[in-house]
Amino acid sequence: MFKVICVDHVGIACKDLDKSKKFYTEVLGLACTGEEEVASQHVKTVFIPAGETLLELLVDTTADGSGAIGKYIAKNGQGIQHMALRVDDIKAAIADVQAKGGIMIDKAPRGGAGGMDIAFVHPKSVGILLELCAPHKA
Amino acid sequence: MFKVICVDHVGIACKDLDKSKKFYTEVLGLACTGEEEVASQHVKTVFIPAGETLLELLVDTTADGSGAIGKYIAKNGQGIQHMALRVDDIKAAIADVQAKGGIMIDKAPRGGAGGMDIAFVHPKSVGILLELCAPHKA
Repeated sequence: MFKVICVDHVGIACKDLDKSKKFYTEVLGLACTGEEEVASQHVKTVFIPAGETLLELLVDTTADGSGAIGKYIAKNGQGIQHMALRVDDIKAAIADVQAKGGIMIDKAPRGGAGGMDIAFVHPKSVGILLELCAPHKA
Repeated sequence: MFKVICVDHVGIACKDLDKSKKFYTEVLGLACTGEEEVASQHVKTVFIPAGETLLELLVDTTADGSGAIGKYIAKNGQGIQHMALRVDDIKAAIADVQAKGGIMIDKAPRGGAGGMDIAFVHPKSVGILLELCAPHKA
């Protein structure tokens, strides 16, 4: 059995990273703690802590908007693309969700931003793009 | 000046409240703590705590899907409709955001679910539907 600990992060698809960063920092008084490019996902991320949760600003890095974030924005406009729940054991979570009839996109954990092991639940199961994540164990 | 405390809740637009509730409780092992109808917003809400944040499942209560959640789903499908940041002082937050060039939909706090005072930031300012909220002070 696994346990959900908290909302690890909220993934926000942005058109203009600098404009969004400016709003969260200058208008809302929050701080950026990290900027990272995840080449395999064609995305650049900026992390902004709010309590125990990170706001994860996401921008497409492809020239033609063909990455996941570019496609999301083309379809929906800017918005909250996904939510990630932190779990205590990512492998147990993947097994458990499937055992209970949930559909996982990722049948095994893969590396995400911020040194986390991540796995996505299929939107067919839960209606939203839901990520499960846990700090990587060596 | 105001301070952002945490992600108070993540508002998730659902087509089938029972199906969504079942996933979060039976598959993910979380607990529902409250169900509330906010008649003025034509919405029924279910609260599911995950750490310090509530997952707020939202379903349209109008017969023809003409409420805010019905319209959201018609346009985008199910998904994360809004995020709410808890602030220490909602009136100061509304004043401050506007003083710094942000656009508020609500120029004064109004009553939301869970006994909170709430005010929405305009998506033009921040790219998403962002709610600011604070526990109601008498």
